[in-house]
Amino acid sequence: MESTIYSQSEIQALERRYRATLINILSGFKSANLIGTTDSRGNHNLAIFNSVVHIGAKPPLLGMILRPTSVARHTFENINETGYYTINHIHQEIFQKAHQSSAKYDREISEFEACGFFPEVRDTHCAPYVRECFVKMGLKYVEEHFIEANGTRLIVGEIIELILPEGSVEEDGFLNLAEYGTVTISGLDAYFSTEKIERRAFARPNEVPKTL
Amino acid sequence: MESTIYSQSEIQALERRYRATLINILSGFKSANLIGTTDSRGNHNLAIFNSVVHIGAKPPLLGMILRPTSVARHTFENINETGYYTINHIHQEIFQKAHQSSAKYDREISEFEACGFFPEVRDTHCAPYVRECFVKMGLKYVEEHFIEANGTRLIVGEIIELILPEGSVEEDGFLNLAEYGTVTISGLDAYFSTEKIERRAFARPNEVPKTL
Repeated sequence: MESTIYSQSEIQALERRYRATLINILSGFKSANLIGTTDSRGNHNLAIFNSVVHIGAKPPLLGMILRPTSVARHTFENINETGYYTINHIHQEIFQKAHQSSAKYDREISEFEACGFFPEVRDTHCAPYVRECFVKMGLKYVEEHFIEANGTRLIVGEIIELILPEGSVEEDGFLNLAEYGTVTISGLDAYFSTEKIERRAFARPNEVPKTL
Repeated sequence: MESTIYSQSEIQALERRYRATLINILSGFKSANLIGTTDSRGNHNLAIFNSVVHIGAKPPLLGMILRPTSVARHTFENINETGYYTINHIHQEIFQKAHQSSAKYDREISEFEACGFFPEVRDTHCAPYVRECFVKMGLKYVEEHFIEANGTRLIVGEIIELILPEGSVEEDGFLNLAEYGTVTISGLDAYFSTEKIERRAFARPNEVPKTL
């Protein structure tokens, strides 16, 4: 396959929107989640994120990248106010509604209502889950890191509640997200379905690699 | 769909490997990349990462989560020594070889050779690219953040060189990774192919959502 090579100055010279579209592709496929929060007066907020990332299993930690100047600002303010949020997997039947939550709605408007989702609050914490999602979790804020290079933040939270489809977890703890329609995002706006190729066994030097 | 709910204490009580397998699923689909580095004596290292995440487009920044106690340690040491690394998308034809790079090879063994990849060094920086990959980039280390909660690190780097298949970038900067076989990872060991559903137009309040 022939290649095109972009130097640093060629990357810098790309038109603003073209560059944003291209650079957002380069990390590879992204997670697709709705983050549910509430403010101290009980107003619900919902925002789409493609930057949720695994941090660790013990304790169970997830991170996400927030750009506080964007629509993610309400999410950030609410997490600071209450300390809790939910992460809800976006699946194939709802990704179009989920994408609409990226519109800049006013503070007093709930994206749950505007986009057609039902907020579900449990008695364990204050953050609303998305009823229409199948895989969802409640998180407690743990720590944050300010990224000097561009003013974004890494927010780290601990999973304190987990809601999964009944019978979805296999014997060894695996869950096939493709069976529940979880989508993946590429770039800013492209949604992809997935199909499992295979699981690979734990790799060791000098051992023939195995399919699990 | 009926749900199963796990409380915080039920999550904590899960058997160690079962929990690692399950918790690694929960962030959603992950990026699948090979990170190429070199030490100051020119010994190449290659490691698979499922935690590369977009940080920003201007400047073009990517992050990744490193657990310095794992096989990622050589990657971390080399980035500290030289300041440069490459990120190479894993595609369907090479994911099995790529997975094998997660084995704990000794410091003096190059995973390029052990796993059957060819290191390609250019004159722009010292880090080796993976010849067999189609989408790849060279990065310069920018900053890091130590995550207190579990001792992992977020490493942030700037893209200083970009190598893409000729003709792969569409008119507006979009690139369909599915066409080039880029895979996505779920959990620790499951590889998925993808298929584009659609791109969604930029969302605005009070506008009918559109397909792009």
